[in-house]
Amino acid sequence: MAKALGRGVVYFDTPVFIASSAAVAGKKEGAGPMGQCFDRVEQYSRFGQKTWEQAESRMQQETIWLALDKAGLTADSADLILAGDLINQCTSSTYSIRPFGIPFLGLFGACSTMAESLIIGSLFLSAGGGERAVCATSSHFSTAERQFRYPLSYGGQRPPTAQWTCTASGAAVLDTVTASSPKIEGACIGRVTDLGITDANNMGAAMAPAAADTLTRWFHATGTSPDNYDLIVTGDLGLYGGELFTQLMMKQGFDIKPCYRDCGVMMFDGETQDTHAGGSGCGCGGSLLCGHFLPLIRQQRIKRMLFMATGALMSPMLVQQGESIPGVAHIVEIASGEENYHA
Amino acid sequence: MAKALGRGVVYFDTPVFIASSAAVAGKKEGAGPMGQCFDRVEQYSRFGQKTWEQAESRMQQETIWLALDKAGLTADSADLILAGDLINQCTSSTYSIRPFGIPFLGLFGACSTMAESLIIGSLFLSAGGGERAVCATSSHFSTAERQFRYPLSYGGQRPPTAQWTCTASGAAVLDTVTASSPKIEGACIGRVTDLGITDANNMGAAMAPAAADTLTRWFHATGTSPDNYDLIVTGDLGLYGGELFTQLMMKQGFDIKPCYRDCGVMMFDGETQDTHAGGSGCGCGGSLLCGHFLPLIRQQRIKRMLFMATGALMSPMLVQQGESIPGVAHIVEIASGEENYHA
Repeated sequence: MAKALGRGVVYFDTPVFIASSAAVAGKKEGAGPMGQCFDRVEQYSRFGQKTWEQAESRMQQETIWLALDKAGLTADSADLILAGDLINQCTSSTYSIRPFGIPFLGLFGACSTMAESLIIGSLFLSAGGGERAVCATSSHFSTAERQFRYPLSYGGQRPPTAQWTCTASGAAVLDTVTASSPKIEGACIGRVTDLGITDANNMGAAMAPAAADTLTRWFHATGTSPDNYDLIVTGDLGLYGGELFTQLMMKQGFDIKPCYRDCGVMMFDGETQDTHAGGSGCGCGGSLLCGHFLPLIRQQRIKRMLFMATGALMSPMLVQQGESIPGVAHIVEIASGEENYHA
Repeated sequence: MAKALGRGVVYFDTPVFIASSAAVAGKKEGAGPMGQCFDRVEQYSRFGQKTWEQAESRMQQETIWLALDKAGLTADSADLILAGDLINQCTSSTYSIRPFGIPFLGLFGACSTMAESLIIGSLFLSAGGGERAVCATSSHFSTAERQFRYPLSYGGQRPPTAQWTCTASGAAVLDTVTASSPKIEGACIGRVTDLGITDANNMGAAMAPAAADTLTRWFHATGTSPDNYDLIVTGDLGLYGGELFTQLMMKQGFDIKPCYRDCGVMMFDGETQDTHAGGSGCGCGGSLLCGHFLPLIRQQRIKRMLFMATGALMSPMLVQQGESIPGVAHIVEIASGEENYHA
């Protein structure tokens, strides 16, 4: 069971454990500062497929296999799979999971998808709907850039606020029994927030207000403050979005800077990799959560963190019609050990 | 709480009630045989907006307002909203719910979205994550046809298997307290099923195998048969998909014909409205569930039904790349009164 600490703020009484996780990434991500954390780095971004879209599906599929394999499971042992991505009709996910035969709920939360899948997976397990759920997401530079911005061969100039969509995927297996694993303790479901950003090359600014809204609601509902967490990690706000986010939180009376990290900033070496404001994409936060942070929690090197994946709900067509870009951000609280913080 | 009757087959011990529902539709849908069931029929398919996409958002937004209003609620009283649609990046939903300030989880299940939203809403409430959840979906002929098939003004010929994307929206408010309302008793989460259909004008055939897979799994897990239900209703299989579905079920040993209806077939008068194999779209099943079937359950004229929304996970780009069209179908079991069937 769960209990509501506020609107959309949930604490899980029934323990939800992350039995295993896996991360796969492309060559550029593998060459960055986080390269060592991935289970596999693919040198050819086509992943042996004919098209970029098939490549992303294949990458996500391999990540799910790896996560299942690490938990000693086959696809038959999962009751539910939750997945989504950036590509129209979420095809990277639907084609990825097609051979698995696992009951499937498709999600669209843009880059907030990893957190969204963990939240719904936790609700499913804590309600007693099953014993095991798989959560997955992915993004691919070559599928996302041409869908959201310019044809790949066009060579459009990228402004300093632009981020680099990561070729990366993360997957995690949730259950209610593997008691020594990282544990999902709570969640905060985000609200659609829109402060009027219309620049498709400034996603960080479009998402920062949503992140500030969600984190402020979480602090108020749980009665906690930044001091209660070893880390507060966003998915892909990037350099400028992250700066705006910390400023917005300061206005709310919370100084998060000492414990704040952003996966987009961590993913690349900005000086040598020409990635401007940092990495982005569902796979950015998803792969670093699954490849970097969850192992650190498992080793007790992180005791308690908030993982907040942020999504820019960006539609090229709607932006062409003059609309602004709304954002959304969801928090998942993850802790090591078996102690309940809110109990 | 819920209990698992099988993989992805869930029965809700904690009662989940449908406190209210609303449906809004366009002129053509209003002129069809189901025209009387809608709360509002809009004569101008632009819904007072500048673009078709904004029109669909506006229609969905009005439907949600109507559903909240019928339950005597404002947006502030909802803990969660679950919505999705057919349009890239699910913008009809994200822009629709932007002003509400309700915690939001975005879904992509193509035309299976109404059932998907009811399932996740029921999991959220039965886990104790909150007291009230809103579930919504929509589709619009003019946004969907140009995205998935041809430009509207192109005037492409439609083959007999083609369906007509409905301009319609449905919304429902779930809670755990309004005990006299229709009750969600169980659910079956579908698997991605693909028998190799590549014809974007034959969605019914792409979805029928998924529908048969889900319904067969449901019957086996619950130990029920068609005799246990007043009605088994699919969202938008249409004439040919529905025929294929009943044949596939017969092969599994279940004769569903006596209690089977399809919202796509019900929506239009095929003889006079030139809609070929029937209606389709998330809003087809969503609006008839919310506008037609739920009121009949409330009046005890239907005691127990299975609502199965079917989705063709169709991507124009992937079809152009030679891929086939996978389908998915989710079941929600809805009953009148307060008795538990599975208890």
